[in-house]
Amino acid sequence: MKAPCVALLTDFGTSDHYVGSLKGVILGINPRAVMVDVTHDIPSFDIQAGAFALLAAYAYFPAGTVFLAIVDPGVGTARRILLAQTERHSFIAPDNGLLSPLLAREKAHAVRSIENPSYFLPRPSRTFEGRDKMAPVAAWLSKGESPASFGPAARGLVSLDTPEPRRIGSEISGRVLYVDKYGNLTTNIPGGLILDLGRGQARPKLEAFVRRRRIKTFGESYGAARKGEAFFLIGSLGLVEIAVREGSAGHKLGAGAGDTVRIVRHG
Amino acid sequence: MKAPCVALLTDFGTSDHYVGSLKGVILGINPRAVMVDVTHDIPSFDIQAGAFALLAAYAYFPAGTVFLAIVDPGVGTARRILLAQTERHSFIAPDNGLLSPLLAREKAHAVRSIENPSYFLPRPSRTFEGRDKMAPVAAWLSKGESPASFGPAARGLVSLDTPEPRRIGSEISGRVLYVDKYGNLTTNIPGGLILDLGRGQARPKLEAFVRRRRIKTFGESYGAARKGEAFFLIGSLGLVEIAVREGSAGHKLGAGAGDTVRIVRHG
Amino acid sequence: MKAPCVALLTDFGTSDHYVGSLKGVILGINPRAVMVDVTHDIPSFDIQAGAFALLAAYAYFPAGTVFLAIVDPGVGTARRILLAQTERHSFIAPDNGLLSPLLAREKAHAVRSIENPSYFLPRPSRTFEGRDKMAPVAAWLSKGESPASFGPAARGLVSLDTPEPRRIGSEISGRVLYVDKYGNLTTNIPGGLILDLGRGQARPKLEAFVRRRRIKTFGESYGAARKGEAFFLIGSLGLVEIAVREGSAGHKLGAGAGDTVRIVRHG
Repeated sequence: MKAPCVALLTDFGTSDHYVGSLKGVILGINPRAVMVDVTHDIPSFDIQAGAFALLAAYAYFPAGTVFLAIVDPGVGTARRILLAQTERHSFIAPDNGLLSPLLAREKAHAVRSIENPSYFLPRPSRTFEGRDKMAPVAAWLSKGESPASFGPAARGLVSLDTPEPRRIGSEISGRVLYVDKYGNLTTNIPGGLILDLGRGQARPKLEAFVRRRRIKTFGESYGAARKGEAFFLIGSLGLVEIAVREGSAGHKLGAGAGDTVRIVRHG
Repeated sequence: MKAPCVALLTDFGTSDHYVGSLKGVILGINPRAVMVDVTHDIPSFDIQAGAFALLAAYAYFPAGTVFLAIVDPGVGTARRILLAQTERHSFIAPDNGLLSPLLAREKAHAVRSIENPSYFLPRPSRTFEGRDKMAPVAAWLSKGESPASFGPAARGLVSLDTPEPRRIGSEISGRVLYVDKYGNLTTNIPGGLILDLGRGQARPKLEAFVRRRRIKTFGESYGAARKGEAFFLIGSLGLVEIAVREGSAGHKLGAGAGDTVRIVRHG
Repeated sequence: MKAPCVALLTDFGTSDHYVGSLKGVILGINPRAVMVDVTHDIPSFDIQAGAFALLAAYAYFPAGTVFLAIVDPGVGTARRILLAQTERHSFIAPDNGLLSPLLAREKAHAVRSIENPSYFLPRPSRTFEGRDKMAPVAAWLSKGESPASFGPAARGLVSLDTPEPRRIGSEISGRVLYVDKYGNLTTNIPGGLILDLGRGQARPKLEAFVRRRRIKTFGESYGAARKGEAFFLIGSLGLVEIAVREGSAGHKLGAGAGDTVRIVRHG
């Protein structure tokens, strides 16, 4: 039997005991669980960043993986806890939009509201429902418990407001979704859009603009530019990224999440 | 057979090779060990913070878990290395107080001084006994080796000086134990104490004071206050916490570990 | 059967989804893989630091461990991806010097260039070959696939320029390789060299110099000095370290990687 994978994504950080407690609870219920950290360093309460990291990683996990995603400013309030199932994976998360970009891409077979207290720790805390409600449910699910056991179908899910990139004539306008550890700026512009923009031209001349800086090099890999030079490329998520070779585009361009990015075709 | 859990808590950080080396040693001795990080980001040499994180997490781990806790400014000196056993768990740690809050709460069946060199790596370093002495012992213990094999009973353990909260009339005085990643201030005041303070009154009016700031809202969860407002609550460890909804109480109140906290009942 | 260990060392950091994606890929191919993080906090693009951390940790891992080491400023360029095998371990890394200190110490039975696309993810990204090429190969290797399957023998490996310490008369000159989380300065001077320097003298008087500061205490452990005092010792890697008891030598001495360190014998 394959050991079932439980993938964890939170804004708990790793300095405190929180993640350890979650994992202790999971192992106590399912000693065979294989726990993998996606990341615990989502900025506190930043649902948008959590949703992005989940979207970037989930497809690389094996079928059957249970994702436990917790960025939960409303912990202890009436917000629901969801269990969503797609063809290959299960996702447990608060109903605050954390799953909405994922569920916009993947069709969910079923979404439930987790309510059955017989799966929770006794006397669950109102401030750490990750440990006391969500982790036990993830563990039971990874052990093969039927999703229907945890609660009824949920409708009317909370959605994140996620502006889409727009193309107007020879220009695409989007924005920076995310700055990674290297300082690369990942935008919400699908690579396919800029390939379309250049289509039909032998040597389309594309430029990117962010924070009034013009970026002239469109490359295929981080090796496309000179050391220290900014360029743009279609990154490993299939999205347009702005990068600096062996440097930080975030620092060099003074840009960050939310900044507008334009891709312009000349001629 | 259940794979035995080895839980790690250190001040090693995760930037260096230290934690990886520990884990390599453990897997070399017990390839079936399931290693879980409680945290490695205890501030360097901060025994008090390490003791708190261990106390906060241990109860959530499955029976049989071996905890390896290393915050060890005296590494290489004559300080002993302890193996303590409680009803459900085992703990390996230097004899410097790191285990003392835990052993004040849990009754230890036996505490031993780890001395038997046949369980150590050959020629153990004087500066990394975690890798060369404690990790191998944790691995052998997780494999089922008898605790008595590692050394004789230890008496006269080093204790941390941990001031208790005091109640005088309608006021409880305690202090901040710990500031977490969100900026929540966990105090040493058990929730039961403030419930007692308000008992017998239909609507007890409680206020908290820290750093000359008065906090008027006593809530049940992080949702009890308005965004950005400070409030206090009984947190997930059963202790009084001071929090700011979707913000950092540490920053907002300029407060940190060691600061005095008073809870006052009016009327 | 022993579960095969895959040890990961990267400069990916742990804030992004990168490490999680790697691990998802590995588990998808080999669900029995036991993954251990050496560290993911190598400074971005710092091959030298990555090579040092790998060198410091690898020997503590069980025989059969597959190391996946990724510090890869040239990702997506023509640089090769190597698979090196030593008597006990396998190493997958870009051909940029990351393995060169290790291969200078350990004899490699074989070094191959990983080129066989049938082991890669479909349509590998040019910017995340760790996920799309190296992780799958590590997983297949940990499952027992023959090294020869991945590609032909590689010659003419890229080497790091690593200056050796020099002894001239009663003085050894080396440099700081690495500053750890505690602020300890690890040098490239083998402990044996300074023992040789003092040999034949009943009480050799050795002093260390770094950044024009003279360090007079040569100790055996971190307990050798008074709290806050700088001293030098032979550390857990067998190399000379400069430390401050319960403090940071890096901060106290204003010293860092690359700084010259001299050890001088008087009399």
